[in-house]
Amino acid sequence: MYFITGNRHKYEEAKVILGEIKMLSVAYPEIQADNLEEVVIYGIDYLKNKIDRNFFIEDSGLFIKSLRGFPGVFSSYVFKTIGNEGILKLMGGERHREATFISVVAYYNGKTHIFKGECKGKIAEKVKGDKGFGYDPIFIPEGSEKTFGEMETEEKNKYSHRGRAIRKLRKYLESC
Amino acid sequence: MYFITGNRHKYEEAKVILGEIKMLSVAYPEIQADNLEEVVIYGIDYLKNKIDRNFFIEDSGLFIKSLRGFPGVFSSYVFKTIGNEGILKLMGGERHREATFISVVAYYNGKTHIFKGECKGKIAEKVKGDKGFGYDPIFIPEGSEKTFGEMETEEKNKYSHRGRAIRKLRKYLESC
Repeated sequence: MYFITGNRHKYEEAKVILGEIKMLSVAYPEIQADNLEEVVIYGIDYLKNKIDRNFFIEDSGLFIKSLRGFPGVFSSYVFKTIGNEGILKLMGGERHREATFISVVAYYNGKTHIFKGECKGKIAEKVKGDKGFGYDPIFIPEGSEKTFGEMETEEKNKYSHRGRAIRKLRKYLESC
Repeated sequence: MYFITGNRHKYEEAKVILGEIKMLSVAYPEIQADNLEEVVIYGIDYLKNKIDRNFFIEDSGLFIKSLRGFPGVFSSYVFKTIGNEGILKLMGGERHREATFISVVAYYNGKTHIFKGECKGKIAEKVKGDKGFGYDPIFIPEGSEKTFGEMETEEKNKYSHRGRAIRKLRKYLESC
């Protein structure tokens, strides 16, 4: 089974849960949609006749309540431009810091199967930790005092949106 | 000829330059690309067999230098979430306020033709004016002291990225 992604961090997180999978970096169009499901379904449609075995793709986003869901579906682009510093600036003086990380996994084995994971939490007041990637150092999941940036992969997977979505995929695969 | 857009402001701006055109609101996928050209070319490919006469689409974005091009290709989404207030917050304390508005028009008449317009300027210190739409009230084009939000359509068209791209389309149509 392939995990089609260009992001080695995501691959490492998935491998801890799924065991032997192969990372394959194939570009596919990501549409500007309102939700992650549309993005991955469009991606699967593009990829399904090009890949010679079962595969999955994943898309995720950070949805900040006081910013009306920003950066959301565009989290990756926003990170590359304004980064964590920009998010903290936008959140400056804001007391309502609730945010949700969402991950959507789409698995294709002749049919498309969607698995969604969520992780509620809040935006930290400053960058903490240097593990993980992206917004990890500014996101504190519910039930922890640490940011994802301060956690090793196994600890992060317990809480994380991506861990939850990929465990749903594992459960599905075990049932097949 | 159709202008395929859901944005009445854009339609009005185009009509001042092109005369009789029809607005047609048909949704098409917008990909998460690095530049506007890719977005419109993908859109044309999707639309070309669905529309029964010549048509054009347009995509535009505001590229702020000190924010590494943010909000860029995702200007519309960013506007809907953090808005002008968010941009001004991100620019707080920033002396380098250079920004460029870019518009790309793609016209389809059996072949695809691309017309690009740019407008250099700077981000205002605060919201000014209530005309236009989107980032117009925080963008001051080079050669003016006013924001686009303080200009009537005809004055805005003289400077604007969209005006420039659509005048290139008009020139092409006249040469046919």
